[in-house]
Amino acid sequence: MTQTLPALDRSREHLLPALRTAIARLDPASRLAASYHLGWCAPDGTPSQGNGGKAIRPALALLSAEAVGAPAAVGLPGAVAVELVHNFSLLHDDLMDGDVERRHRRTVWAIWGGDTAILTGDALLALAQEVVLEAGTPAAARAGLLLATTTRELTRGQVQDVAFETRDDVTLDECIEMASGKTGSLLAASAAIGAVLAGAAEPVETALKTFGAQVGLAFQLVDDVLGIWGDPVVTGKPVFSDLRSRKKTLPVSYTLGDPRHGPELAAWLAAPGEPDDAALRRAADLVENAGGRDWALSEARERMSLAEKALSTVDIDEEARTELTALGRFIVDRDS
Amino acid sequence: MTQTLPALDRSREHLLPALRTAIARLDPASRLAASYHLGWCAPDGTPSQGNGGKAIRPALALLSAEAVGAPAAVGLPGAVAVELVHNFSLLHDDLMDGDVERRHRRTVWAIWGGDTAILTGDALLALAQEVVLEAGTPAAARAGLLLATTTRELTRGQVQDVAFETRDDVTLDECIEMASGKTGSLLAASAAIGAVLAGAAEPVETALKTFGAQVGLAFQLVDDVLGIWGDPVVTGKPVFSDLRSRKKTLPVSYTLGDPRHGPELAAWLAAPGEPDDAALRRAADLVENAGGRDWALSEARERMSLAEKALSTVDIDEEARTELTALGRFIVDRDS
Repeated sequence: MTQTLPALDRSREHLLPALRTAIARLDPASRLAASYHLGWCAPDGTPSQGNGGKAIRPALALLSAEAVGAPAAVGLPGAVAVELVHNFSLLHDDLMDGDVERRHRRTVWAIWGGDTAILTGDALLALAQEVVLEAGTPAAARAGLLLATTTRELTRGQVQDVAFETRDDVTLDECIEMASGKTGSLLAASAAIGAVLAGAAEPVETALKTFGAQVGLAFQLVDDVLGIWGDPVVTGKPVFSDLRSRKKTLPVSYTLGDPRHGPELAAWLAAPGEPDDAALRRAADLVENAGGRDWALSEARERMSLAEKALSTVDIDEEARTELTALGRFIVDRDS
Repeated sequence: MTQTLPALDRSREHLLPALRTAIARLDPASRLAASYHLGWCAPDGTPSQGNGGKAIRPALALLSAEAVGAPAAVGLPGAVAVELVHNFSLLHDDLMDGDVERRHRRTVWAIWGGDTAILTGDALLALAQEVVLEAGTPAAARAGLLLATTTRELTRGQVQDVAFETRDDVTLDECIEMASGKTGSLLAASAAIGAVLAGAAEPVETALKTFGAQVGLAFQLVDDVLGIWGDPVVTGKPVFSDLRSRKKTLPVSYTLGDPRHGPELAAWLAAPGEPDDAALRRAADLVENAGGRDWALSEARERMSLAEKALSTVDIDEEARTELTALGRFIVDRDS
């Protein structure tokens, strides 16, 4: 994913100064941890050259304001807010998942401990609401409400994700529900919050949310395929990485429901010890032979078509529609 | 604190159904943990007779609506929200502080683990905003903004509290700042949020916040005195409990600044090992002889008088003023 899009470049340009102003309000300890997490500095505070990621969610937020004819600036508080909520969830999830690295850098909890990860996450979540509610308008209240319900959905998804680790009877429907919470809900909110701040009518808000939610699911499906068969050079993760960690991803969950290959994969997932390369290859073959890979990719295509259909049903700015569609495809189309 | 007040009884009556309706929106795992934490059920979900605490913050919120001539019901979403924010912070703080018991029951993290405490806290914080923003009005946006800035203050206070544990140069000013964040900020927001929802003018909001903030500091000062000299029967904690845990409370911090007794107390706090009763008594005497106890109690009286003065400067409903004053005194006047 080294290519980029004009909408993403514009978004980063808008976003960064506003995000920095928001982060500057935090207490010194949370500010340092958040700035480090965003790639702006080293753990000792020395500024670094990190650009803080692709900022896909803020780009969706800004485009959604333009979609209803407002300037991108109207969506800016929403763009900052969704980026803050995204990073709140990363800080807490990294701690819960025990991940010591993110984007080749140590995670906040791995450096400063769990308390700092919890408190910095809490502060970012509060800050997100602050940024969006400051205007004090009914539209701000609607946007804040969207953020709040989305945060509950994110949390629900993570509750399921944590619970799935110790369950061996997770259904495909539950996996899709979990992905809708963890990935779909914030992309849905991102794709609508700028429009909400611009006072969009309900059907437009709903269509934009559907677009974001379906793009989110398509992304997750492709990401799960890459987690098994992705080129380590492209993904930055080892081959079979999601199998190695025995994650109940969507293609795995699909395979578990297959009467021919499901039982063997279930036994494989339950077996103790570190699997060797042959065992990993065998598990990947089970998913492939059960049709898990084809299913996930075709389901991703189906989700993308639902996303684009949702956009086509409402009367929005043509340029924004084109850019949203391109951004949706960019999010999902990775070198799989 | 077995006595009660009419305002508290009324508040609980209003609050409980609305709080239960809000909690019912959570995903099943967070709902169970939150219901247990609130005293409504056992860890397995069996309903129990707990009344969920005194609900002081909701009572302030409801009275603040009445203070500006609105029915208590106008303040109800604010009352639910401050109770949710309070419990969000308890869930996260218990985990960070490693406290395995609260009100003679095991804490959520001690039963279900840290992930559940983090996620349930996150969900309660999101839910608080949801409840308050649902009306979609400018007043709702102002109330949501008040909640958000308050949550940041709470978080800042906890950041300081955690940092103070490993510092030996904490000043009295820093301790007061920490108490303002951890205790004052949410009481300030509670005493104003109902009025904000009722569309109160800025000076009234400010006066009510000052009232709550000063009551909060007075409460903390008295609580810190009780943490050293309180009767275990009344406080439910062992004698010298805050000294035993070497907490840098306000009277302790005052004493550390005393040239005659400060150095000995500092050395005492830094000494390793579990202190015996004689050592605890000696530390308590150091605080007493430095004037730490008298200072805290006189400072508490001063804060209460500032609180009541703030209320007297604005034109609010007389009955609500009387009830707020009584509630403020109830919060602070404990059997010390």
